[in-house]
Formats: sequence, structure tokens, C-alpha cells
Amino acid sequence: MFDYKLLSALAAVVEQAGFERAAQVLGLSQSAISQRIKLLEARIGQPVLVRATPPVPTEIGRRLLNHVQQVRLLERDLQSQVPALDEEGRPERLRIALNADSLATWWASAVGEFCAEQHVLLDLVVEDQTVGLKRMRAGEVAACLCASERPVAGARSVLLGAMRYRALASPAFIARHFPEGVRADLLARTSALVFGPDDFLQHRYLAALGVEGGFEHHLCPSSEGFIRLIEAGLGWGLVPELQVREALARGDLVELLADKPIDVPLYWHHWRNGGQLLGLLTEQLIAAASSKLQVLS
Amino acid sequence: MFDYKLLSALAAVVEQAGFERAAQVLGLSQSAISQRIKLLEARIGQPVLVRATPPVPTEIGRRLLNHVQQVRLLERDLQSQVPALDEEGRPERLRIALNADSLATWWASAVGEFCAEQHVLLDLVVEDQTVGLKRMRAGEVAACLCASERPVAGARSVLLGAMRYRALASPAFIARHFPEGVRADLLARTSALVFGPDDFLQHRYLAALGVEGGFEHHLCPSSEGFIRLIEAGLGWGLVPELQVREALARGDLVELLADKPIDVPLYWHHWRNGGQLLGLLTEQLIAAASSKLQVLS
Repeated sequence: MFDYKLLSALAAVVEQAGFERAAQVLGLSQSAISQRIKLLEARIGQPVLVRATPPVPTEIGRRLLNHVQQVRLLERDLQSQVPALDEEGRPERLRIALNADSLATWWASAVGEFCAEQHVLLDLVVEDQTVGLKRMRAGEVAACLCASERPVAGARSVLLGAMRYRALASPAFIARHFPEGVRADLLARTSALVFGPDDFLQHRYLAALGVEGGFEHHLCPSSEGFIRLIEAGLGWGLVPELQVREALARGDLVELLADKPIDVPLYWHHWRNGGQLLGLLTEQLIAAASSKLQVLS
Repeated sequence: MFDYKLLSALAAVVEQAGFERAAQVLGLSQSAISQRIKLLEARIGQPVLVRATPPVPTEIGRRLLNHVQQVRLLERDLQSQVPALDEEGRPERLRIALNADSLATWWASAVGEFCAEQHVLLDLVVEDQTVGLKRMRAGEVAACLCASERPVAGARSVLLGAMRYRALASPAFIARHFPEGVRADLLARTSALVFGPDDFLQHRYLAALGVEGGFEHHLCPSSEGFIRLIEAGLGWGLVPELQVREALARGDLVELLADKPIDVPLYWHHWRNGGQLLGLLTEQLIAAASSKLQVLS
């Protein structure tokens, strides 16, 4: 069998984004971690890590990490049957990549009870969908919640529902830029908000209105910050309806064009050999999503 | 003088985290970008980029980026005096690293008017303080808001005030884990929430209560998600008072131990040769912070 001491060192360096922190987490010296990585590389005959900041796994390193992640989940199933195996009685950590807007809205209430009952600690990673799936492929996360349907090799994806987004701005922003009412062609000449370089929701909204090409925008990679910037009149942007029901009711935020939402589907990706815990979480999410997300027809 | 076509290519690759996106932004082919980087490296006689995903600047690459960032800010000052120089009349982009909790709370209302008046687009990067300052040093951002005082070479730091954090949990969490009242020694045996591997606020809180060593925790790198998880009863955690005034008043969240806040100072780091725009923003922040943040004695 593989030497899991070496593989754990590799996993810790990548998960903790550095040798120093990996050493802390494993309770080893930094040089012990280095030696384990070197030994692993000597056995395999090729490097497993690019020594950048943070360290990046090589192609072969990724395959090893993927394997570690799956072994950990299988170990958990075994431990529930053979409790003595569980050396430290520690709760299981589940590493999950998800989009910021889900985390800011419905995610917590969907998983809260599950985590308490199963004694699971969540290790959440906020990522755009492309990066989230890359992390799946790299074996860095056990599951991923994103807008893309196609699963990576070895994983399954299931549609949970959709998040409804509405294009909003502050009343002051609308009064300043659109004194005679919001017009699609003028919209592209005001400032928009964009979550990050992978966020094309605002582009899609403008394209659906027949407005093509670039537009001025701020970049704000924070769900809560996004809404704060809109409220402060810095620009318009697409926001999950779930997050702004009260602000809309109060009139702090206003929809630019009446009832033109965009629905973004959410797929739950999980390892096929992810074990019982991931299976239970998947069931729980499917059940919870039906009341929290839009049903896509 | 330097060839700024080459330096712009380097800046775009690092800022856009890849050759493909850099090419899109500059309206060039990917191979044109590659050639420019190679030409730059041939002239300097050493590599400027580590070709990882995303590409990472080398030591010399960082120095070049730092220079580009400062030249851009100086160019803006000149353009305001010699408008014809401004080829495209584009708004200035200001790239700023800041902590997630500021972005989720007071930041937007402090800078909203400034951005509208000066026609500035913000390129916000959410980073823990260590990474934020690393990005300053790497020349990737013009300014950085963080809890650390010591400026990087070439920059200045100014204390804006402090954010007050309170340790909160849901009433249900407290009832389940502390039926006889919250006790510091039991606190370490329940689940906490931690923002990310660089967040030691919960550790400091426990240490101040005399509790040493590790504790179970979820990782949740989202300000809004953090509060959602606490509300859903997954754990306790330290939250900016600014963000939860209403939830505290409603009783949705409860302070674990009465009136034991932690004040975290916030320093604004900016390039010394950052030009007029950064200077104005700095004045604006100092003025706004006095009403939004705690004054540190």
C-alpha cells in the first residue's frame, strides 16, 4: 500500500497553502514535512509540487490528492462500523467549494441540522464555478456547488434548482443616471458591478437587452459588499433575490427594469465513491433546495 | 525609457491571473502576450513570471509590477492637467486589497461619493492582511486596508480606527451546548467558526479567557456566510458589531459572554508616490472612518 504519512503531508501542504501551516496542522516540524514531500517525489520519480507561493500540485500530485480525498471519505464509513479504528474520535471535515451567493443566502439553513447531527465540520471554499470544478478535479474538495452541469471524471452532478437574480440599483443612482426612466441603451454607459473576472451575469443581462460589448464596471468579490456598493450608489448589478427581499420591500433597492430576472441553475457535484456521509449530505441538499431555490422547468 | 508595451503585458497577465484573459483585456492574441513577456525576459536577462496557474511574478517581476502601478497613478495626475494625453477618456481603475468584513460593512458608504465624483472604478480584492500586504509589495494593488501597521517599503500606513467584534451564537446553539449558562472552559469543546487559516480572532478570544490550544471549527471565508452559519446553529464566532446590530436587537444572535468585545485596528496602506487620486481617497477615508469605526485610545 501507499505510504499515507507521505500523502498526508502532500495533502496538508496544498490544503493549508504552505509548508509552515501544514507543519502546524500535522504537529510536525517544517523540515519533517519537506522531507516527506521529497521522499514521496523520490519514490514516484517526479515532482508532486511546484514550489510557488502557495505551493501548487503537479499533474501527478493532483491525482494523489484526489486519491487521498476519496480514501478519507471511505475511512469515515469504515469508522462508523468499526469505531475502534477512529483513533481520536475527531469530527469529520468535509471540504466543499461553493459559490459566494449560495453561502450568503440559503446554504447555512439547508445544512445546519445535518452538520450538528452528523458532527461534521465544514471546510468551505468560495470559488467561481470554473475554479470549483478544477478543485474537484485536483482532489482538493469532496464536493462543489456551481452553475455548470458537466461533472469531472469520477464525480456525479445533480440539479438542485436555480437562484433568481434581479438587476438592482439605488433610487439615487437611478434618479441621477435615468431621470427620464431606465433605458437599456443608456444602461451600458453607467457603472455596473461585477463579482470577478469569471462573472458574466451582467454581460448576459445587457446582451439579452440587445446591448453588446464592454461596459464600465467595478470589481467586488464579496456578496455582501456587492449589495453595500449598490446601496451606496456606485453602480447597478445582479443580486440574488433571496438576499434582498427586505431591501426591495423597503425601497432601498429598486429593480432597473420591472420583472426581468435571470435564473442561474445550481448543480451539486460530488465524488461517486464519496462514501455514506457525502450521500447523506446530497439527500439533505436535494430535500432542502426544493423549498429554497427556484424550480427550473 | 522602458518599453511599456512589454510591462503592460506583464501587469495584465498577473492582474488577470492568466495569459488568455490578459490577451482579452488588451485586445491582443495570446501568442502576442507570450512574445511580449519573452521579449521582456530576454531584455532583462531573467524570468519575470513563474508559469504556474495562475502565473506568479518572480522577484524581479514584482519590482516591475510595482513600478507599473506607480507610473499609472502618476499618469493620471498628469492627465488631469493635460487632458489631451488621456487617449480614451476612460475612468481610472484603482486596485485595492481589503478585509472582507470592511467590505461587508462600512467601506461602500465611505467611498461611494468619492468614486462617483472622481469617476473612479474600484477593483477590489478581498484578502487577509498578510496576503494584502504581499500584494502591495508585489505591486498588484495601489492600497491595502488591513490590521497590520507596518508598511511595505515605499508605502505609508495610517490608522483609521478599529472594528469591534463580538462573540455570537444563536439562542438554540446556546441552549443546546450551555443549558446552565456559557462557561469559558466548555466553549472550546463546541464548534467555532473561523474565516480562514489566517483568522486567529477566535483563538485570541479563547486565549483571553484562559483557554489555550486548538478547538473544533468550521472554515467559512465569507462575511455574510459566517453570520448565516451562526444563525443556523453550526457554531459560535466573532462578528463585526456593525454587521449584526439588527440581529442582536431582534435576539436572532446572542453575545456569548456579556460585553467582551475585541477591537481590531484597521490601517490604510498606500503608495507614497501614489499621486493625487490616492491622496484624495486617503483623506476621504480618514474623514469617513471617524464616524464609522471605533476610535482607539
